[in-house]
Amino acid sequence: MKNELIDLVAWSHFFLSEVLENGDAALDLTAGGGRDTLFLARQVGVAGQVFSFDIQAEAIERTSRLLANTNIEYSRYNNHEGELSRGNGVFLIHASHDRIKDFIPGKVKVVIANLGYLPGGDKNLTTRQETTLAALRQAMAITEAGGRIAVVVYVGHPGGEEEERTVAGFFQDLGETEWKVLKLEPWNRKKPPVLWLAEKW
Amino acid sequence: MKNELIDLVAWSHFFLSEVLENGDAALDLTAGGGRDTLFLARQVGVAGQVFSFDIQAEAIERTSRLLANTNIEYSRYNNHEGELSRGNGVFLIHASHDRIKDFIPGKVKVVIANLGYLPGGDKNLTTRQETTLAALRQAMAITEAGGRIAVVVYVGHPGGEEEERTVAGFFQDLGETEWKVLKLEPWNRKKPPVLWLAEKW
Repeated sequence: MKNELIDLVAWSHFFLSEVLENGDAALDLTAGGGRDTLFLARQVGVAGQVFSFDIQAEAIERTSRLLANTNIEYSRYNNHEGELSRGNGVFLIHASHDRIKDFIPGKVKVVIANLGYLPGGDKNLTTRQETTLAALRQAMAITEAGGRIAVVVYVGHPGGEEEERTVAGFFQDLGETEWKVLKLEPWNRKKPPVLWLAEKW
Repeated sequence: MKNELIDLVAWSHFFLSEVLENGDAALDLTAGGGRDTLFLARQVGVAGQVFSFDIQAEAIERTSRLLANTNIEYSRYNNHEGELSRGNGVFLIHASHDRIKDFIPGKVKVVIANLGYLPGGDKNLTTRQETTLAALRQAMAITEAGGRIAVVVYVGHPGGEEEERTVAGFFQDLGETEWKVLKLEPWNRKKPPVLWLAEKW
């Protein structure tokens, strides 16, 4: 296979696919249009688990439709707790992604997130960044040793550059004996997104 | 295969291997210990061409030994011109890498360089950076459409950070319709090297 050089989503999928196997558990912090959730579901198969969060009802709807159109079964949750340990499947969770620890009973092999399309409007930037960091901390705490995380940060929208600095600081502060971190950044473009890849020792 | 996340040499080889095929021509701007030249030689096979430059005699010696130990044939050149169009093989060229255009008759599919171990001593930093940029310009001019270049820059030595800024500026100035560029940077480490990947449209 040949990756499109500056397609960061393709890189994120490639990177996670190197460790994510049939039957594994995976976490999508931002269901969005469902593209990443679909990738994870195909990768882990019916014996695996995919937990996909989004605080926007529209995102859960779009992800549901994408999965249905590709004949992948899923179940939906709205702020229920303690339900998700019951077997395998794709779980679409309409809740803020900083509630990971309320929903996910065990460890996950990989985590994916696309930041920058989170709902703004009634939330101020600081709150959004705090939520993002809380979600990343929880996600990384339940990542297995040898597991991987991929985070795409879009910097073209208002507040995007500040969010990128916050995320950069977050990854900089990780212990170098706990996490290996690689930053992928398209160059000679105006305000490209950035991809963070990390692997737990 | 699974790449070691923060092994930039492994990433550079992976990236080039996606396009470099049996019978292709490849260019190593910094023979050094011979590791990259060996990789290129194996990738293009006996039907291909590898041009490997180094201004240090010791580097040409080490590369010769590595190739000999792995039963790969090579020929050595010292400031000769016009000799390199005669067929296939591995050509070790004891000359500054800004003399590419004097030695290489046609196009190349990929280019690799490891900057930062170039000889210092009797050269000042400015000259070295100028030489590096001249070599990159010549190398990129003879790269085929769809071809790729990988440049590792070490920043831990004196002058390394300035060299990295110079190289960053060089890649920033490339036309976005001519080159796609991706920067790979290990994070949460002290002064890690940086890998520049570029693909010609």
